[in-house]
Amino acid sequence: MLPKSISFNNEELVFLDQTKLPGETVYETQSSVEHVWDSIKRLKVRGAPAIGIAGAYGLYLSSKTLPRDSFVCFFEALKATAEYLDSSRPTAYNLKWALDRMLATAKQCQNHSIESIIEALRREAVAIHEEDRELCRAIGNNGLGLIQDGMGILTHCNAGSLAVSELGTALSPMYVAHEKGINFKVYASETRPLLQGARLTAWELQQAGIEVTVITDNMVAHMMDEGLIDMVIVGTDRVAANGDVANKIGTHGVAIISKHFNIPFYVACPASTIDLNTPSGNEIEIEERAPDEVSHFSGRSTTPAGVNIRNPAFDVTPHRLVSGLITEKGIYSNPYAEKMKEDYAR
Amino acid sequence: MLPKSISFNNEELVFLDQTKLPGETVYETQSSVEHVWDSIKRLKVRGAPAIGIAGAYGLYLSSKTLPRDSFVCFFEALKATAEYLDSSRPTAYNLKWALDRMLATAKQCQNHSIESIIEALRREAVAIHEEDRELCRAIGNNGLGLIQDGMGILTHCNAGSLAVSELGTALSPMYVAHEKGINFKVYASETRPLLQGARLTAWELQQAGIEVTVITDNMVAHMMDEGLIDMVIVGTDRVAANGDVANKIGTHGVAIISKHFNIPFYVACPASTIDLNTPSGNEIEIEERAPDEVSHFSGRSTTPAGVNIRNPAFDVTPHRLVSGLITEKGIYSNPYAEKMKEDYAR
Repeated sequence: MLPKSISFNNEELVFLDQTKLPGETVYETQSSVEHVWDSIKRLKVRGAPAIGIAGAYGLYLSSKTLPRDSFVCFFEALKATAEYLDSSRPTAYNLKWALDRMLATAKQCQNHSIESIIEALRREAVAIHEEDRELCRAIGNNGLGLIQDGMGILTHCNAGSLAVSELGTALSPMYVAHEKGINFKVYASETRPLLQGARLTAWELQQAGIEVTVITDNMVAHMMDEGLIDMVIVGTDRVAANGDVANKIGTHGVAIISKHFNIPFYVACPASTIDLNTPSGNEIEIEERAPDEVSHFSGRSTTPAGVNIRNPAFDVTPHRLVSGLITEKGIYSNPYAEKMKEDYAR
Repeated sequence: MLPKSISFNNEELVFLDQTKLPGETVYETQSSVEHVWDSIKRLKVRGAPAIGIAGAYGLYLSSKTLPRDSFVCFFEALKATAEYLDSSRPTAYNLKWALDRMLATAKQCQNHSIESIIEALRREAVAIHEEDRELCRAIGNNGLGLIQDGMGILTHCNAGSLAVSELGTALSPMYVAHEKGINFKVYASETRPLLQGARLTAWELQQAGIEVTVITDNMVAHMMDEGLIDMVIVGTDRVAANGDVANKIGTHGVAIISKHFNIPFYVACPASTIDLNTPSGNEIEIEERAPDEVSHFSGRSTTPAGVNIRNPAFDVTPHRLVSGLITEKGIYSNPYAEKMKEDYAR
């Protein structure tokens, strides 16, 4: 039922162009590393784990075109390509994590032929993809116990099948619960400016037969006040070592409002999203995107010409507002930062 | 500098069509009471005080066409017309307040000729309009002391010149402060689904030469976290007797987030917005508007076909989240409900 956001077959890397959803379902074959960079930058492929996978495949494909004179030359060029790919979305930790893992693989094979290093890079990219599928399923199984019959669950942005490789992160417990016959309703906040909630989350939940209601971002408090929301589950682009969570702009506000109404606020993510080298959310760089994402819609201006616009793509939710982190290893309940650090130290 | 949202000259009632802003500035002469009803319903004229004024003029104009056989016949028809006009926006208290005031005027003149009753209705509608101008100025003067040099002020939706008759309510202290040469920045949350913040507030502040930045509704927490916001001022459509505040959807969330960051949250309104007959916010009817306002933009669908949509136009902010009420009589600081009740009992 669920569409594949990324597929890799016969050396062909294909992305589902998410900027065209829900109107059109267009699959785009990636022709070069610049094409992959552009697809990530333009959010054709998006979601922290998905862009890690996309970056790994992109780096592998470009490795086939790099100079083969010596390992040093090859590796320098590979590193430069990885840095280039990483520059497409600076906030997403999984991208850097996947690219670093690819570079480490190349380094481990440095005494082998360039040919076999490239083959090792292919296997590594496929492994990153495969592992992600398994992680998503494990996150779903671990989050399943949180979902009770009759619940209303709010999610923000899209951390579902489209953002990852199969079941998603935030949506994975919902897919698993739906498989088990548990009845619940999902509220998807539309997620301005790019409407990932309205366009993507609503679409993929609908495809899976899960009841979903779209609300504007500013309706969250009212829905909670009406008693419609029992729990929030969101994804994340990067978790700092102290447990602070970077996620799509608006997440911090949802967390504050959830706390106000005593509604549990969970964050679902694989271990690769946890960045122990970043001490706290203060050190996470927040990508500021182009103002026209806010000021224009479908080519039509929604603001007077020349007005100032802000467009941070992410915000940081302090760990004290997070009820728990749902990972492939289990649920880390707040205060979860210390326990998480022990388990994920690497 | 500031455009007039409503004007009445030579028996001609003209509204600035706010649904076309900021792209086009179109003034529309109202041809009938149905036309006025439709203009209010479609938000061509909007903002609590403005629709009170619009309703009063609309009722006056229609009074000229009512049966003149007897006062009883005339008054019954007038009452039915007032009820009809009131049905255009059920949440807005000023509309009912203005219409009730018009009906009371007619009743007071019941021993006079129908001709002179109609003349009294004209004078009353003009008086409601004039008083509103003075009230706005008084609200601005009373709120002036809250605005310090260098401040960042957030406002939600549009409670400015366009929503009222001249300086607005929430924006009035800003216009008065700007006149006095105080420097400050305004952040306008765009206010989905109809973007009154992005389209209207940004436009009128820009026209007045005040620095304004548009943000999406879900950026409020992040902007506060960045330390950019020192105060919030919003308008209101109805204040209940206990001080609970009904305003544009999203206001409740902004209030909760403001409280979290210890940022003062003020509500500006004239006395006519305070409804002592409504004990608390629980009794305020929340208008649910058409789903296509959320699911479509500029004719293009932003959600998958057939998905559920919620579209409450307002929410209710509990009085404990409100730092104070800025009215024409002064600032009522929290806990303000009792003092307000005394002053406004009528």
